[in-house]
Amino acid sequence: MLNKRFIFNALGRILIFESLFMLLCACVSACYGEDDIVSFLLSFAITFGVGGMFWMFGRNVVKDQLKRESFIIVTAVWIVMSLFGSLPYVLSGAIPSFTNAFFETISGFTTTGASILNDIEALPHGILFWRSVTHLIGGMGIVVLAVAILPFFGFGGMQLYNAEAAGVTNDKLHPRITKTAKSLWGIYMGLIGLETIFLLLGGMPLFDALCHSFGTIASGGFSTKNASIAEYSPYIQYVIVLFMIFAGTNFALFFFVIKGNGKRLFTNSEFRVFLSVILIASLTIGGTLFFRTDMSFEQSFRDALFQVTSVVTSTGFVTADYTLWHPYLTFIVFGLMFSGACVGSTSGGIKLFRHMILVKNLKIEFRRMSHPNAVIPLKIGKKMVSQEIIYKVLAFLVLYISVFIIGTLFMTVVGLDMDSAFGAVATTMGGIGPGLGVVGPMNNFFAIPGAGKWILSVLMLLGRLELFSVLILFAPSFWKNK
Amino acid sequence: MLNKRFIFNALGRILIFESLFMLLCACVSACYGEDDIVSFLLSFAITFGVGGMFWMFGRNVVKDQLKRESFIIVTAVWIVMSLFGSLPYVLSGAIPSFTNAFFETISGFTTTGASILNDIEALPHGILFWRSVTHLIGGMGIVVLAVAILPFFGFGGMQLYNAEAAGVTNDKLHPRITKTAKSLWGIYMGLIGLETIFLLLGGMPLFDALCHSFGTIASGGFSTKNASIAEYSPYIQYVIVLFMIFAGTNFALFFFVIKGNGKRLFTNSEFRVFLSVILIASLTIGGTLFFRTDMSFEQSFRDALFQVTSVVTSTGFVTADYTLWHPYLTFIVFGLMFSGACVGSTSGGIKLFRHMILVKNLKIEFRRMSHPNAVIPLKIGKKMVSQEIIYKVLAFLVLYISVFIIGTLFMTVVGLDMDSAFGAVATTMGGIGPGLGVVGPMNNFFAIPGAGKWILSVLMLLGRLELFSVLILFAPSFWKNK
Repeated sequence: MLNKRFIFNALGRILIFESLFMLLCACVSACYGEDDIVSFLLSFAITFGVGGMFWMFGRNVVKDQLKRESFIIVTAVWIVMSLFGSLPYVLSGAIPSFTNAFFETISGFTTTGASILNDIEALPHGILFWRSVTHLIGGMGIVVLAVAILPFFGFGGMQLYNAEAAGVTNDKLHPRITKTAKSLWGIYMGLIGLETIFLLLGGMPLFDALCHSFGTIASGGFSTKNASIAEYSPYIQYVIVLFMIFAGTNFALFFFVIKGNGKRLFTNSEFRVFLSVILIASLTIGGTLFFRTDMSFEQSFRDALFQVTSVVTSTGFVTADYTLWHPYLTFIVFGLMFSGACVGSTSGGIKLFRHMILVKNLKIEFRRMSHPNAVIPLKIGKKMVSQEIIYKVLAFLVLYISVFIIGTLFMTVVGLDMDSAFGAVATTMGGIGPGLGVVGPMNNFFAIPGAGKWILSVLMLLGRLELFSVLILFAPSFWKNK
Repeated sequence: MLNKRFIFNALGRILIFESLFMLLCACVSACYGEDDIVSFLLSFAITFGVGGMFWMFGRNVVKDQLKRESFIIVTAVWIVMSLFGSLPYVLSGAIPSFTNAFFETISGFTTTGASILNDIEALPHGILFWRSVTHLIGGMGIVVLAVAILPFFGFGGMQLYNAEAAGVTNDKLHPRITKTAKSLWGIYMGLIGLETIFLLLGGMPLFDALCHSFGTIASGGFSTKNASIAEYSPYIQYVIVLFMIFAGTNFALFFFVIKGNGKRLFTNSEFRVFLSVILIASLTIGGTLFFRTDMSFEQSFRDALFQVTSVVTSTGFVTADYTLWHPYLTFIVFGLMFSGACVGSTSGGIKLFRHMILVKNLKIEFRRMSHPNAVIPLKIGKKMVSQEIIYKVLAFLVLYISVFIIGTLFMTVVGLDMDSAFGAVATTMGGIGPGLGVVGPMNNFFAIPGAGKWILSVLMLLGRLELFSVLILFAPSFWKNK
């Protein structure tokens, strides 16, 4: 039997948590004396009220076997939070359509950063802040996810940290996991603080600096400016590149850095691949831009570096329109949408750890063909990767491609051309933001038909929760009573 | 040590075999009194001469350990045959550029059917016949391949026929395999004969009927008409659909049909998936065409059925321009380029057996997630698929995607837009023929830059030989002396 009250209890707590952030936004509105404060107070009241009811109806049982409930909670949390998170947009009239408001909210919570807003700068500060706060909350959620949920599937990257798998809500978490989660949140908040300071030093106003720091470290990508980061100076662009790289790094590695073992960072093979991918792609693109256009040397490589880092880390900030580049450069950027950064970071998508396993496994397959009886272990760094994990990674790839194809088919059905459909699906599944064609970096998702927005919302959720954790809810075997 | 003389001997025999077909084309030229006869006699002399030299230099040793040599021969055969097969085109002046001639020849031998010819009907009969004969020879090669080579990799589909794996040249073939190959060639020729008769009954001239039968049963797609099969009556179109389906069927199944056990055909699960894919795609496309255009009911579904069957079986004949259809229909056709038909047929691409394993494995992965300790076997029909084969299929998919991405990148570098690059690479790897954009069904590959044609030639070869058998030659472990 499913323990429904346990689920309601967990959702209740999360809603109460969410409502407090709405109160925070009401304070921001109050500071700026803007009248969207009413919508925040109302949203707070509704969310807090419903959350409280859920919490009271529910019960926080302590049982060993709540794995099924945990799975349901993981997906339900993001949906319920996005439903209530849409309230400020709708009630303030900033985004009158519920479909659009939900799209913007789930895009925020999943730290995708795909927007339907045509004129961001016209919005009041409270709403803009709420928009960035959805990234902040989403990023915190991902950190928990990486620690507590993904190890269930054998690929959390937390293997590196030797964390044990455990349940999902705080009370169910193993003490050590709770401690780990808190440490990771400390790192998360520390990075946000640090970036804010660096942005302030570059002359960015505090409000903008906070919003962009949330967007960077959560690898979200919502900006407070219509022109995104192109609005700001090269210094600020470089600062954001640096912090996007931090956001794409396995957070566990920062422990070593804090403990003075910075060398450990560069001996981590995934991190090295991460930097190599950014470097090689930036040099290729930057070189082509420099030699084939009349852009300056510095701008060529800055534009290349910024766009590449933004896409690889699945952030989605932009300073240039990569769809106007030579087709092969656009194709490289499109390809990078399937890359993702390190596991255990806030970045989305497939992630480099999986790519490394896929490539190494392929190499081994070739060797096996020449030496059919040889037992060749697959190693990442110095660690051996078990057959089971390789298998799960391969299954993940098949699933990712399947969802990508079905998603693209749906998007062409609602009327998108093939390029735009490819771009829209790749960017939402990868948690990036800008896509290709009608959803390119200088456009937004406003013009996508309603049905398309719902499909893309589902894809954002699927991508963020690494597919299996959502789709398992649709497997008949999941619902069978043991 | 590599036994080079064994390799030369094999290549020599193949060249002599090829040269005889050039002589056949000289006869065709003679019949029509056309002056391309000179180029055929010259091509014959060169090919026969070089083949004879190879044969004399080489030695047909009988050894047990010639696996490495066999691998080299498999790839070398297709390259050497294509080099010499280009001679008639170049010497007759029909295709003056060697790059174009090689592209047309390897497209023929790999039974892809992608063409660089702008005006097919302007060519003399001998050249047109040679063009179709490359399909005929290529199809025969594939039959051997399916019997003798692919079982090495654990997926020849010949598991169904319980054939044993063996070497590649005739003398190295296990007696039973030789017998099987001969039986399969019998079926192959029988189908060509049967189709020719049906086409003659529809009023098609003998010359056209033979050429189109070669193109159909080899799942090639070269036509003698500029408008491809749109040139002919609905009756002929239906006949070709039927024989394309036969060409996409596992040839081993025809043994059962011949032995009177026709039921066995429809209990074969891959064959049922094959028919289902064609049916569902045709109904979807036909329905949309009927309701959204002013096409007649019959033509809507005929166009849909023809294009779908042609792409799924990797033939590449066309009767309609699917790039002018609604984007989601074009996307479906593009998706089908990755389908392929049954293993053990002449069709190219990924093939349905692999797709079935991928889908079933994914289902099992979901069940494993709910029941981590359960051992769940993967079955196709009533046969259990070993873990090793599943693994190889997964590796094949990763490799296919990798080659697809790298190929597309190269094609965008030589200047194609993304859609055209996607289409060109998908259609050559899948052995189909027409692609998207500038290489759509009403265009051809003439305008592709030279470098692009060479890349696509490599992709045709890779796709035809199922990637691993070619790429293993580039693995360092392959060249290491044991």
